[in-house]
Amino acid sequence: MKKILIFFFFFQSLSSQHDVIIKKIFDTSLTKSKAYEWLDYLSNQIGGRLSGSLEAQRAIEWSKSELDKLGFDRVWLQPVIVPRWVRGPKEFALIETDPGITFNVPIAALGGSVATPSVGLKANVIEVFNLKDLDSLGKKNIDGKIVFFNRPMDPKYISAFTAYGRAVDQRALGAMEAVKYGAIGVIVRSMTLRLDDYPHTGGLTYGNLPLSKRIPAAAISTNGADKLSNLLKIKPDLKFLFRQQSKQLPDVKSYNVIAEKKGSEYPNEIILIGGHLDSWDTGDGSHDDGAGVVHSMDLLNIFNSINYIPKRTIRIVLYINEENGGRGSEKYKEISDKQKLNHIFAIESDAGGFRPLGFSFTTNNNNFLKLLEWKKYFAPYFINVFIKGGSGADIANLKSENNVLAGLRPNSQRYFDYHHTEIDTFDAINKRELELGSGAIASLVYLFDQFGIR
Amino acid sequence: MKKILIFFFFFQSLSSQHDVIIKKIFDTSLTKSKAYEWLDYLSNQIGGRLSGSLEAQRAIEWSKSELDKLGFDRVWLQPVIVPRWVRGPKEFALIETDPGITFNVPIAALGGSVATPSVGLKANVIEVFNLKDLDSLGKKNIDGKIVFFNRPMDPKYISAFTAYGRAVDQRALGAMEAVKYGAIGVIVRSMTLRLDDYPHTGGLTYGNLPLSKRIPAAAISTNGADKLSNLLKIKPDLKFLFRQQSKQLPDVKSYNVIAEKKGSEYPNEIILIGGHLDSWDTGDGSHDDGAGVVHSMDLLNIFNSINYIPKRTIRIVLYINEENGGRGSEKYKEISDKQKLNHIFAIESDAGGFRPLGFSFTTNNNNFLKLLEWKKYFAPYFINVFIKGGSGADIANLKSENNVLAGLRPNSQRYFDYHHTEIDTFDAINKRELELGSGAIASLVYLFDQFGIR
Repeated sequence: MKKILIFFFFFQSLSSQHDVIIKKIFDTSLTKSKAYEWLDYLSNQIGGRLSGSLEAQRAIEWSKSELDKLGFDRVWLQPVIVPRWVRGPKEFALIETDPGITFNVPIAALGGSVATPSVGLKANVIEVFNLKDLDSLGKKNIDGKIVFFNRPMDPKYISAFTAYGRAVDQRALGAMEAVKYGAIGVIVRSMTLRLDDYPHTGGLTYGNLPLSKRIPAAAISTNGADKLSNLLKIKPDLKFLFRQQSKQLPDVKSYNVIAEKKGSEYPNEIILIGGHLDSWDTGDGSHDDGAGVVHSMDLLNIFNSINYIPKRTIRIVLYINEENGGRGSEKYKEISDKQKLNHIFAIESDAGGFRPLGFSFTTNNNNFLKLLEWKKYFAPYFINVFIKGGSGADIANLKSENNVLAGLRPNSQRYFDYHHTEIDTFDAINKRELELGSGAIASLVYLFDQFGIR
Repeated sequence: MKKILIFFFFFQSLSSQHDVIIKKIFDTSLTKSKAYEWLDYLSNQIGGRLSGSLEAQRAIEWSKSELDKLGFDRVWLQPVIVPRWVRGPKEFALIETDPGITFNVPIAALGGSVATPSVGLKANVIEVFNLKDLDSLGKKNIDGKIVFFNRPMDPKYISAFTAYGRAVDQRALGAMEAVKYGAIGVIVRSMTLRLDDYPHTGGLTYGNLPLSKRIPAAAISTNGADKLSNLLKIKPDLKFLFRQQSKQLPDVKSYNVIAEKKGSEYPNEIILIGGHLDSWDTGDGSHDDGAGVVHSMDLLNIFNSINYIPKRTIRIVLYINEENGGRGSEKYKEISDKQKLNHIFAIESDAGGFRPLGFSFTTNNNNFLKLLEWKKYFAPYFINVFIKGGSGADIANLKSENNVLAGLRPNSQRYFDYHHTEIDTFDAINKRELELGSGAIASLVYLFDQFGIR
């Protein structure tokens, strides 16, 4: 009986010790976070930073210099060869219902797309909703036309990311598939749940298609897509004209930015916190993924503020080229494997700077069941949604049999209002919501640092 | 064994039946909600609607006419005599550090405040942080001065409402207390966690102070408050001038709007869904509490869309005068008591149109434990924070020994960015977040309608 009591008190006091430290972490994140001022700089002084651009290089140098101030053992640049795609001058598009009767609509070239002829590309339009619609329509209906993919994201999914995942095949694969049936261009409804006037860019792939066979592809705003669809119903032979001068330049050298603080007790066990430094060029990349960059940078700032010295090795990795290549992620993995590094836990923030609701995890069942015991530490902050499935695009390749990968899961409802558009800017960031993300990540990292993988 | 199995399957099928209906409710809320278009009208076509104003009367008539279209058994106006306070022309304030050297700062009269002299009120300023600072400073330091209450909301509280609750005594009671020490005016730091240029109005009370003893009180923006505080440090004898022409007019007749659908099985058990129709006059009252109004109105729209016929009596109550008197709530309670109405469950939405995280409850422990069993129905939507404590200002007086009162609990981080200011407008509303609120309320009402109070 006595023994049990002692054990009980011991357990209680341990448990409340963690409660106390996590409370300190959140207090600190809401009062001494640097995330908001860093993101202000990254968004407003550097701005959009597509891989290979001067802005990307500035972001690399700036983030290294900020990390240098935080007391890491080492901050370095890991060379990565990245693709360099440039948008060129602002794109132009119009619907022509009769000669001289036209409506301008907002478009943005999809990342990786080839240019149209310099006078623009003008053709009839065929509207489809699925990649397999191409099969049923066949070459006779598609040849020589612009294919207009117009399936909206389904508003019934609670996670806007799920709705995105179920719609984005049109953007990623539409051009590659449509060209098989003789299409000469592709227009894709923007990936957002809103009706608005902002085209949402994003990557496409042409697969192995030779350069000469590639057709230009652009996103059209949802209001523009609805207009085009409605006009097609009463005027199926209308013409669509669009002009873009985007092109793929030769690959260039760029960098992942890495900061490391060696663990005081278990230096060979690495905990990685990451986001991606590159962004699309249309806006400032504040939510995608400036938020993840500053969440990651904030980790040691918060630990320093509460005088917490990690037992395990902490690595901050700001990946390059998430948006159009994933080369930063590949390079990091390649070097890690060569060095036989042991990442026991990695977390990525790449779902925006909105109010965090919890985390998603990729790990084995045993680990996940143990993780569920930690939900209680996050309950006071209403950040205790712990679900299986998914971490982040950059860290997913670090999966091992026993380790844990995680993604911060903020409220997703507004994310696709901004995603890959000119309005993904600093004014769309709420300071407290951003800071709670820093607190959530630092708290989970603290627990992994305390307990390791059991 | 067989019996147990049958019971088990019965239970399973019941459980999954509720899952299915709640999924339908959320699907409907994200596709057929009228909340967003209603709120557009209420915000942009009617606007701010302080009790006793023409706008409040328009909101009453409009909401009744919309409810009339939904198939209630009865929609009626319940007369309520309300106070009528008017702000008058836009307020004016400046800091004068030396004769002729001035800085304009944004202020807004507090609701219920008396006017300054028509040329304005100009005096030295004494800065305080707590009501009890007045005691320690005493009459010798306060007499003839303007008292400047400058305690910020504490950013460390996770719920912004808690931070508000711990700071708002300065606004509510500051003038009444300061006058005891000879203060001639009061300026209060705005109740927000942001640093910005919007004064946040809100109610004050003078207690039993006769009209002749009342002193004018205004909110100053947080940036204005910081400026004033910083200038006072280097120039303690600076003067503050402010001018406002607010006044209390005679009480006028107004209304609660009530809609009722009789229950098909238990007509004497009432489920109440409510929000408040009045708002402050500075903005459009979109979050406070237009969101709650349209959440409430949406209930029968959603039930109709899924062909759900409630067993218990549903009452939508749009209260008048929550902001500066609570007379609508009092009147509703008075009439309910006379009619011996049995409200088994009441829910209020008055915390904004942001993403719902869950509900707070006021009820006995037994009921609360039973309620926790329902968390599972809300888990797929991440709306499963169920906490004790608090329902809503309008429904709190309906508490009985056995009933359940609840408040919708949306993400609170952005609420005080807008609260009681000119930017509480429709553009601050996110459609999906608003709609998830309708779905959350309708789902909880569905469960109470199915199970009653056990």
